[in-house]
Amino acid sequence: MANLKSKHVVWHPGAVTKADRETITGHKACTIWMTGLPASGKSTLAVALEKELWDRGVHAYVLDGDNIRHGLNKDLGFSPEDRNENIRRIGEVAKLFTSAGVVNVTAFISPYRADRDQARKIMSDGEFIEVFVDCPVEVCEQRDPKGHYKKARAGEIPEFTGISAPYEPPLNPEIVIHTDREAEAQSVATILSYLEVKGYVPPAR
Amino acid sequence: MANLKSKHVVWHPGAVTKADRETITGHKACTIWMTGLPASGKSTLAVALEKELWDRGVHAYVLDGDNIRHGLNKDLGFSPEDRNENIRRIGEVAKLFTSAGVVNVTAFISPYRADRDQARKIMSDGEFIEVFVDCPVEVCEQRDPKGHYKKARAGEIPEFTGISAPYEPPLNPEIVIHTDREAEAQSVATILSYLEVKGYVPPAR
Repeated sequence: MANLKSKHVVWHPGAVTKADRETITGHKACTIWMTGLPASGKSTLAVALEKELWDRGVHAYVLDGDNIRHGLNKDLGFSPEDRNENIRRIGEVAKLFTSAGVVNVTAFISPYRADRDQARKIMSDGEFIEVFVDCPVEVCEQRDPKGHYKKARAGEIPEFTGISAPYEPPLNPEIVIHTDREAEAQSVATILSYLEVKGYVPPAR
Repeated sequence: MANLKSKHVVWHPGAVTKADRETITGHKACTIWMTGLPASGKSTLAVALEKELWDRGVHAYVLDGDNIRHGLNKDLGFSPEDRNENIRRIGEVAKLFTSAGVVNVTAFISPYRADRDQARKIMSDGEFIEVFVDCPVEVCEQRDPKGHYKKARAGEIPEFTGISAPYEPPLNPEIVIHTDREAEAQSVATILSYLEVKGYVPPAR
């Protein structure tokens, strides 16, 4: 018990270090933060990237609307304040995953520059990789897989990014992807190449 | 582009399945949910368990006050409503980690039975393992590593669990640990044995 007590007094922030995690997993951890208009292709790309990373033995995980909006952030709407809190929480969760040794891929519109910069700010240098999924709004609107653009045009969805709410493109993203003029495999390859060159993951065998 | 569009229409919940993750990591994912009084030894035990799991090649991660209260939940206090929201969010994050293939260890007082049961409810069968870190309040108060019990007795910390706020012990926890009468190594061994017998992790080599 004396032993337990002394361990409490000398607080240890975790016996497993970042270096331990990298050695055991064989790769560095980071957050690959995708941002872009609705239907720009963020989630599709994130899922394809996750698959490719796992195939290489990299522990990857996607955070997107599907597992966040129905769970952690189900209490939030789409007002500017709620969007801000939405992204704040996602940034904190992404930080936890990065701290856990995971290559975390987030796929959210995250329309405000300040919110994305805040997510970057809470992480260590090099841990936050911003990927601008760039696609003209006309192309996104033509895709409209969930019919959201149509409803937004009809006024049925208020504050819809790209139509009735602003989207602030990144000024200095680490990576830019053009989903209107490149195949999914090419976009995945671009991101993987970045991760390899920068030493996050080992080259493909 | 047609390809991308069709991929959007046919929504895929993630190309990497739970079975894929188990095959690649070599273990099952779960949340080991520790609950108990302040200074009962939750964090100390969680960190020791995490270390042992990593030494065995199991991808483990601890969520505790240190990485949650200063980040994701820094907007929350200690009122019953805020404690409820605190545990709700932690449960959702634990679910994400479990879904990501990680053995997630949470170390929070989590005083209310209903909150813990809610965290259990949002996971799949067998994914939530409740560990009651049982220690008499007198022993916890004697340890008092952060001086919180002393301040609570002096009325400087309101709503302090065990002194001026309730703690509801689990009725049917999967595991009970007695930190007042067993060594840390023994407590770790008890939990590891449970994980081995139930097939979450392979036996130690």
